[in-house]
Amino acid sequence: MVATARLVVVSAHAADFVWRSGGAIARCAADGGEVTVLCLTFGERGESAALWKSEGATLESVKAAREDGSRTAAETLGARIEFFDAGDYPLRETPELLDALVARFRALRPTLLLTHSARDPYNLDHALTHEMVLRARMVAQADGLPDRSTPPLGATQVMAFEPHQPEQCGFVPDNLLDITPVMDRKRIAMKAMDGAQGHLVDYYAELAVRRGVQARRNGAPSSVTHAEAFQQVFPTVADRLW
Amino acid sequence: MVATARLVVVSAHAADFVWRSGGAIARCAADGGEVTVLCLTFGERGESAALWKSEGATLESVKAAREDGSRTAAETLGARIEFFDAGDYPLRETPELLDALVARFRALRPTLLLTHSARDPYNLDHALTHEMVLRARMVAQADGLPDRSTPPLGATQVMAFEPHQPEQCGFVPDNLLDITPVMDRKRIAMKAMDGAQGHLVDYYAELAVRRGVQARRNGAPSSVTHAEAFQQVFPTVADRLW
Amino acid sequence: MVATARLVVVSAHAADFVWRSGGAIARCAADGGEVTVLCLTFGERGESAALWKSEGATLESVKAAREDGSRTAAETLGARIEFFDAGDYPLRETPELLDALVARFRALRPTLLLTHSARDPYNLDHALTHEMVLRARMVAQADGLPDRSTPPLGATQVMAFEPHQPEQCGFVPDNLLDITPVMDRKRIAMKAMDGAQGHLVDYYAELAVRRGVQARRNGAPSSVTHAEAFQQVFPTVADRLW
Amino acid sequence: MVATARLVVVSAHAADFVWRSGGAIARCAADGGEVTVLCLTFGERGESAALWKSEGATLESVKAAREDGSRTAAETLGARIEFFDAGDYPLRETPELLDALVARFRALRPTLLLTHSARDPYNLDHALTHEMVLRARMVAQADGLPDRSTPPLGATQVMAFEPHQPEQCGFVPDNLLDITPVMDRKRIAMKAMDGAQGHLVDYYAELAVRRGVQARRNGAPSSVTHAEAFQQVFPTVADRLW
Amino acid sequence: MVATARLVVVSAHAADFVWRSGGAIARCAADGGEVTVLCLTFGERGESAALWKSEGATLESVKAAREDGSRTAAETLGARIEFFDAGDYPLRETPELLDALVARFRALRPTLLLTHSARDPYNLDHALTHEMVLRARMVAQADGLPDRSTPPLGATQVMAFEPHQPEQCGFVPDNLLDITPVMDRKRIAMKAMDGAQGHLVDYYAELAVRRGVQARRNGAPSSVTHAEAFQQVFPTVADRLW
Amino acid sequence: MVATARLVVVSAHAADFVWRSGGAIARCAADGGEVTVLCLTFGERGESAALWKSEGATLESVKAAREDGSRTAAETLGARIEFFDAGDYPLRETPELLDALVARFRALRPTLLLTHSARDPYNLDHALTHEMVLRARMVAQADGLPDRSTPPLGATQVMAFEPHQPEQCGFVPDNLLDITPVMDRKRIAMKAMDGAQGHLVDYYAELAVRRGVQARRNGAPSSVTHAEAFQQVFPTVADRLW
Repeated sequence: MVATARLVVVSAHAADFVWRSGGAIARCAADGGEVTVLCLTFGERGESAALWKSEGATLESVKAAREDGSRTAAETLGARIEFFDAGDYPLRETPELLDALVARFRALRPTLLLTHSARDPYNLDHALTHEMVLRARMVAQADGLPDRSTPPLGATQVMAFEPHQPEQCGFVPDNLLDITPVMDRKRIAMKAMDGAQGHLVDYYAELAVRRGVQARRNGAPSSVTHAEAFQQVFPTVADRLW
Repeated sequence: MVATARLVVVSAHAADFVWRSGGAIARCAADGGEVTVLCLTFGERGESAALWKSEGATLESVKAAREDGSRTAAETLGARIEFFDAGDYPLRETPELLDALVARFRALRPTLLLTHSARDPYNLDHALTHEMVLRARMVAQADGLPDRSTPPLGATQVMAFEPHQPEQCGFVPDNLLDITPVMDRKRIAMKAMDGAQGHLVDYYAELAVRRGVQARRNGAPSSVTHAEAFQQVFPTVADRLW
Repeated sequence: MVATARLVVVSAHAADFVWRSGGAIARCAADGGEVTVLCLTFGERGESAALWKSEGATLESVKAAREDGSRTAAETLGARIEFFDAGDYPLRETPELLDALVARFRALRPTLLLTHSARDPYNLDHALTHEMVLRARMVAQADGLPDRSTPPLGATQVMAFEPHQPEQCGFVPDNLLDITPVMDRKRIAMKAMDGAQGHLVDYYAELAVRRGVQARRNGAPSSVTHAEAFQQVFPTVADRLW
Repeated sequence: MVATARLVVVSAHAADFVWRSGGAIARCAADGGEVTVLCLTFGERGESAALWKSEGATLESVKAAREDGSRTAAETLGARIEFFDAGDYPLRETPELLDALVARFRALRPTLLLTHSARDPYNLDHALTHEMVLRARMVAQADGLPDRSTPPLGATQVMAFEPHQPEQCGFVPDNLLDITPVMDRKRIAMKAMDGAQGHLVDYYAELAVRRGVQARRNGAPSSVTHAEAFQQVFPTVADRLW
Repeated sequence: MVATARLVVVSAHAADFVWRSGGAIARCAADGGEVTVLCLTFGERGESAALWKSEGATLESVKAAREDGSRTAAETLGARIEFFDAGDYPLRETPELLDALVARFRALRPTLLLTHSARDPYNLDHALTHEMVLRARMVAQADGLPDRSTPPLGATQVMAFEPHQPEQCGFVPDNLLDITPVMDRKRIAMKAMDGAQGHLVDYYAELAVRRGVQARRNGAPSSVTHAEAFQQVFPTVADRLW
Repeated sequence: MVATARLVVVSAHAADFVWRSGGAIARCAADGGEVTVLCLTFGERGESAALWKSEGATLESVKAAREDGSRTAAETLGARIEFFDAGDYPLRETPELLDALVARFRALRPTLLLTHSARDPYNLDHALTHEMVLRARMVAQADGLPDRSTPPLGATQVMAFEPHQPEQCGFVPDNLLDITPVMDRKRIAMKAMDGAQGHLVDYYAELAVRRGVQARRNGAPSSVTHAEAFQQVFPTVADRLW
């Protein structure tokens, strides 16, 4: 028997979690798990090109539009979502932001953390998010934090979801997750982000097919047609390998 | 429900499978899986120092002693064992040896292949065994082999077990297998190899404790006291990550 | 002014050159270059699953079908093709095969060599082909070969084309070639391989779109819609970088 | 036809751009390109040992001497130069410094960015400069910056010039630039830095010869006698490879 | 003849230097060297689980207990110890902390610096300490620091001691130090840390045995029974290799 | 006190040992060590361009000239030399060649083995030589070889000398050997190879200066003006690090 899954996804910008792990989120939720998306920024400056083309766009209007889209996407996928509004391009690590992450990790007690890859020369907000997740995880494990209302976090696994140009980021998939049963849902969620980054919907839909082909090349049954790729940071503890 | 596991372990020398994957073998067998060890050589020249110290030792007597020990160890662990007697230090790849591996892979239809790591500057027999396993796996997948009595092999996962000096071999564990329930059995099996390499029993018993500590550091419950480390060659296809 | 290009593509199996570098071939030919494909095997045993399903298939009939397809594909792309019939799954390096490659390299005098990536745990024929190309290039540079009819080869660049699962093969693209003008031709050529590996046509057509998107993400104008990825073995000598 | 080149070189200290990319700068300028050097610090604390030996040296006098030398060097090479006076040993990233870089990138619209390598255990100012260039490039691509007077930057390539001890920095040249036509100019420019780091002139003159030999070993004609080495961060988009 | 050794060990938390380099410290001291431990934090928040279980534990009481233990351990090993009380989980780099390190490096003039490994995904305080040591070393080499009372530091070697899970940290030992003569002393020193992290004493005692076995596998005489592993950051300058 | 050094250098071609380790050889010999060069081939086909330009050159005449030069160079450096005449471009590993190496390793009992680097995409003879040295070392350690006249070899360290284009070969120096006292001797030895590869004398003389500068940058006293770079395969066992 497997205990209730608590998946926490840390997303640098408002849409990253959709493109890169929408399938994992939907699948976990469909399996009865609790999924929370922690969205550090709205991607308001750097990942909202389409919105900035509207007349009269302001930082606030762009943020609001992004928040709407992300909320709809998260809902579609079956996840709760929280926004930290930490400011993007560049994202900066502050003690307050780190403390906030620590507090959420201790309260949510994730059984798995999903976030960006360790390296991304195209997007340093992504790499910083990865580093902050590792740092917040470490701090959350400490016994001596001022707030004693939550016990220390255990040794939660962290996995990176797929960056836009994986080879340039040192991303090597070691887990291919079958998202066939929830692909429709992912597609709908992606469309909720349309206003800002519509051109990515097809790109990531095709990527799911591609990863699905590869899943079959790595032993999945032929019913697996769509997949998402992940790379674990820590070793997996297993009861069986075979 | 999980189908019957068929674990195939390819061991360069007669004792490697015991030190490095005895726990995995015993655990798989205890769980009802079928385990077969394919032993390419007896380690008769290079890994039988103690035996060569007996008066009157000959290649044949050393091989026989090693075969005895390995057979006992395999039995203890719950595995069948086959010897290829391909000659060690150095092991050489011949078309015949490869064909024999291919034939066994197609007949045994493993759900997991365990073998040595891809690199080992101390022991090139180990690295060659890894390469031969990959090559035999590839050939076994071909549709056009002369022998049509067995269908092509599927995309079986291959995992490397731990080399003697892991950091020097580029070995990074990504799977820590809990072998607590079968550690006693592994210890007995290791003792069966005593005549040739007795000094390794304590070394590998302590290693299991060390990997057990690390397993707990990576999220295992406190009941996990012994573990073995593995590194997968291919991505794992998963239904859940969390 | 740029001298006449002479592109030589070394393909382990009969179709690899089509999927992985069909665009480069067609583009080079369209630009007036001479392209020669050196096909080491027909992929008759390992990459002709569909053909083996026909009743009465024999090694010879499969080879013949593959040769036909490859010839048509090469013609479509604008390349000459030569078959070495060296035997696949596994491909083996023999002195004769190496000598034959050396002789062709010296006669053809390539300005660029394209071949498989250095590593491919799924397909060791590919990795061996890479190694043989490097070895044949080295030997072809020697002054003291018995055959003095051709002068030593210069320091020809070697580039790897994209393996099927690039991240698992350590493949990191450092060159994205715009194949937009010849994509139709590549699609036709891929279809010529249909009988054996039809499922790959869509996979590689989509891959070209994906690499095209990435090309634009790396500075290509919006007219670039399809691309192929390559990884150079040696440094490029340049007159300008900017 | 190639559009006007706009080369922007980001140098951690006042002389780095001369030793490491003086040839590229001079060659680009000689070809009609516009070159701008952005000098983050004068190297006043850490790379001006000779100047500190003069009696009465102060931080201001050292900075002034370094500025003089750098200006002369830049002029000799055909480049404009700007000083940020951000303080060295250690260089620190501030929001203001990053904003200043972003503003210059958007105004200058480089077709190529040259800077330090990603790693340098000897000199963390260099590694930080690399990281800041990537971050500033990313921010400069954002649509939503407060300053709308300049449009977002495109996907400009970034290349690392050669660190002092390349192997220790993970620097692997993938581009060898022929600087033969401008080597005399580079030598003159290097001499302008004499006061502070005179011992490096010979070192880098010899390095140019060494890279020139290697260029010929990688296919350059025998007329290429001097070269500089570079490592690209992103894939190159190409119209031809052969 | 060898000059007096001055070993400086920079430890992120109060006990790291004991587990990871207690043998090196004791051996250096026993050989007549001067050893100074620079302890950046007490590990009061993150590495004092046992102490926090005592009733009435406060940050101050935990720090005091850790300081006591570390002082005793350092004394046992023959080292002086200094505490920076910079705050752990997370450790933060401030200009003041860096300046303090620089000042100590210039005053102590180490012939070797020991510290944490460059990467540690489990513990980012460790990785940051490594980076700060490299940065402080660089700054300490500068001629132009305000404080002229100490001359610039030379090119001191830096070595990383062993992290808790070496393979996950990219730690590859290139030096195995024989600590057989001082193992008893290390064991006593480790016990001084008992209150906070008692479970680690056995773990690291066994690790010393394991590294001792490996030392013999790499050429040490059979009298070497215990060792510690280190990884150098810079090349060693040698008078003989053989 | 240090026991007599026995340095064994395994050189793929007749001149490699001179360019790449002439200083180490001369220094070891000057210190009273015994040095033996094992030359696998004469480099007769691939590294004798100048000799092949003489009228009437034959394989035998080229070999003889190369043997002469190598013998003179070895003598100059203070080493004995043995030729295996195994055939170059390509070098092939045969059981006989490996057995011969094993026999020499057991008879010579090296305290250090020097050879080529593990990778060299320009020259696969070099990479194969590295692999054969590791394999021969392993076999020489076996207790059960037919020839009992020599005892098994111990765990001899292996170091790679510098390839022609180090960064392309993954060569990272971890040992810089001071060859200042014997640089004149190395220069003379290099000149003995003049007939075949004269252009390399200056290249490698300058390289020694370059590595000397780097040695000083890594802590060598200013008297060190010339150095050679090496990369160890196995960890060093040490009595002191500081």
